[in-house]
Amino acid sequence: MRLVTTISNISELEMAKKSDIIELRLDLGNFENVPPGKYIVTYRRKADGGLYVGNEEERIAKLRDNAKRVKAEFVDIEFDVEDSILDLFDCDVIESYHNFKETPNYEFLKNLVENKRGDHFKVATMGRSIEDWKRIAKLLIEFDGTIAFLIGEKFKFTRIAAAMLGSPFIYCYVGSKKAPGQFELEEALKILKKLGVRE
Amino acid sequence: MRLVTTISNISELEMAKKSDIIELRLDLGNFENVPPGKYIVTYRRKADGGLYVGNEEERIAKLRDNAKRVKAEFVDIEFDVEDSILDLFDCDVIESYHNFKETPNYEFLKNLVENKRGDHFKVATMGRSIEDWKRIAKLLIEFDGTIAFLIGEKFKFTRIAAAMLGSPFIYCYVGSKKAPGQFELEEALKILKKLGVRE
Repeated sequence: MRLVTTISNISELEMAKKSDIIELRLDLGNFENVPPGKYIVTYRRKADGGLYVGNEEERIAKLRDNAKRVKAEFVDIEFDVEDSILDLFDCDVIESYHNFKETPNYEFLKNLVENKRGDHFKVATMGRSIEDWKRIAKLLIEFDGTIAFLIGEKFKFTRIAAAMLGSPFIYCYVGSKKAPGQFELEEALKILKKLGVRE
Repeated sequence: MRLVTTISNISELEMAKKSDIIELRLDLGNFENVPPGKYIVTYRRKADGGLYVGNEEERIAKLRDNAKRVKAEFVDIEFDVEDSILDLFDCDVIESYHNFKETPNYEFLKNLVENKRGDHFKVATMGRSIEDWKRIAKLLIEFDGTIAFLIGEKFKFTRIAAAMLGSPFIYCYVGSKKAPGQFELEEALKILKKLGVRE
């Protein structure tokens, strides 16, 4: 598992130095002067939990330019973009599905993951019950390499539990929380140490 | 989820007072003067990770007498006893399967749980890989009320992760560890609090 810290500006980089990889959220801040490092580049639309509102072509162009400039290891692209968009990137692609209202049924989620075009599929959906978590856990058991967890404070445990079922990333924050239920980086490190899964 | 503390003698009761229920291990100590409380009574054979060596009739008789005397909420009985044994108890029965060598394949485990005669089936098997944990997690997802986790220090995280998938008990220790990978009671409470799943 790798600890990802989602940052909204360069000043958060120093606080995030214990993480394994940094997610640059282009919709939250400007990362023009970011130093060399391991990065995921993401440009999140409002409908998917981000701040970007505007033209889709401009969004993709900025995402591509930034991914190239920082030599990103991954780019995070929403699952509903056209096939041709995925060819614009030299790095690995995390294809993501967000749902801030609910966790759809298993067949729907399975269908998304089975039809993935990127290197990893990411599912982040609102948690309402333990049944939602069982559905996500089943997805992780059945599909290796999937990134999946529930959104929401009450279901933040799923971010840790998912990693124990093979989900490759745990998304954390430093400074201010970037999504409901994220763990602060140091807190995540402490829990993983207590669980005996990380030094 | 309920935190169970496994105790080997009455002197450990005080340290275990934050747990939800206490497991009295008759093979580890004498509990004649135990005060009223919530108890699981267990008399574990050597082959299943306990200390009892001897006559099976005597073992069951002592288990029954103690369960009656302490007004046990549960008795833990090994899965290979005859049907008639289960009728000897007035309380709920945890039917348990232990394997200190390996985690058998899913079909084997599923078959055990599907044929359970007790109120809960408990599976505790040696962990060797993340695949073992995925198998146990699948069992928890498919069969509500099952108690299941992996044995071993490296897989102690499964004791916590299992509870998040509905496993009703987390077995902890106070004083000395009673099984490989058990969390100390206070440590388990701290982790659960950090994960946001317990006050």
